[in-house]
Amino acid sequence: MIETKIKQTVRDVNDFPKAGIVFKDITPILKDAGLCREIIEALAAQLSELKIDVVAGIESRGFLFGMSLAHLLNVPFVPIRKAGKLPYKTIQQSYDLEYGSATLEVHEDAILPGQRVLIHDDLLATGGTVVAASRLIEQLGAVVEGYSFIIALAFLNGNERLKVFSPNNFALASY
Amino acid sequence: MIETKIKQTVRDVNDFPKAGIVFKDITPILKDAGLCREIIEALAAQLSELKIDVVAGIESRGFLFGMSLAHLLNVPFVPIRKAGKLPYKTIQQSYDLEYGSATLEVHEDAILPGQRVLIHDDLLATGGTVVAASRLIEQLGAVVEGYSFIIALAFLNGNERLKVFSPNNFALASY
Repeated sequence: MIETKIKQTVRDVNDFPKAGIVFKDITPILKDAGLCREIIEALAAQLSELKIDVVAGIESRGFLFGMSLAHLLNVPFVPIRKAGKLPYKTIQQSYDLEYGSATLEVHEDAILPGQRVLIHDDLLATGGTVVAASRLIEQLGAVVEGYSFIIALAFLNGNERLKVFSPNNFALASY
Repeated sequence: MIETKIKQTVRDVNDFPKAGIVFKDITPILKDAGLCREIIEALAAQLSELKIDVVAGIESRGFLFGMSLAHLLNVPFVPIRKAGKLPYKTIQQSYDLEYGSATLEVHEDAILPGQRVLIHDDLLATGGTVVAASRLIEQLGAVVEGYSFIIALAFLNGNERLKVFSPNNFALASY
């Protein structure tokens, strides 16, 4: 079962990025080519009932499986990036971090009004970043069709914050 | 021909990231699912004579096609990241920028001694980042088997700096 394989392969790193946090390190998954293939196919299978025009991946780890998922679904990939990284005209959304705030951007011509967008990231935690990404999609007049994660930290209740945008929220492994 | 298609699709953005630079924006390529597929297959075809055990991609844009290339070659993918992003034990290489310097990192257990590594990034410019990535590979006792880029800015002579590490240097489109 893929959830078991993922949990056996992910590495817990204590006190990263700061004391008290147990970070889920997905790099051991990337070293297992067979498991990567299974993950991409499993992500796509979870989405089979959705109509997806575009996959949007959140920088940086969301680029990894997000791009492969877009290829498998045969749809465009749109990078959502931190402020100052995208070269062309962008729109922005800021969101709160525990200390201070951060800003996400997307190119203003990346997605057309009415397109149905699947937002992908490797991991759902409190959902702050993903909410900002969702607002970017809506700001462009497009629709958040759903969410796809490798891992969800369900105990942080990120799911609740995403329901406002879409009821379709998938993860391969939950903690 | 794929070089023509890439050149027709890439967008030149003037004065990014600063005045006087013409930035090659690959995001229009990402919007064309068919072209993305052709690019991944063309990258793999260029590498058919090489023996590649691992694909290493340089953050962030090197994650996009690098991960897909690793999947197609059925080998592990290793992320090379900016300082402070990788959670586990890392080794570092600093390199000079026009003003100041930057540092790249890789997990110390990401690549085994003797493994043959293909380094991928979206674009080769002066080669500073790619040289630092190459040193990381050698620091781990592994071998730089070759380089693979979507675009090379040949007029900046990055090629010359990479010859020290490997004679195998491929790009799909050169300027």
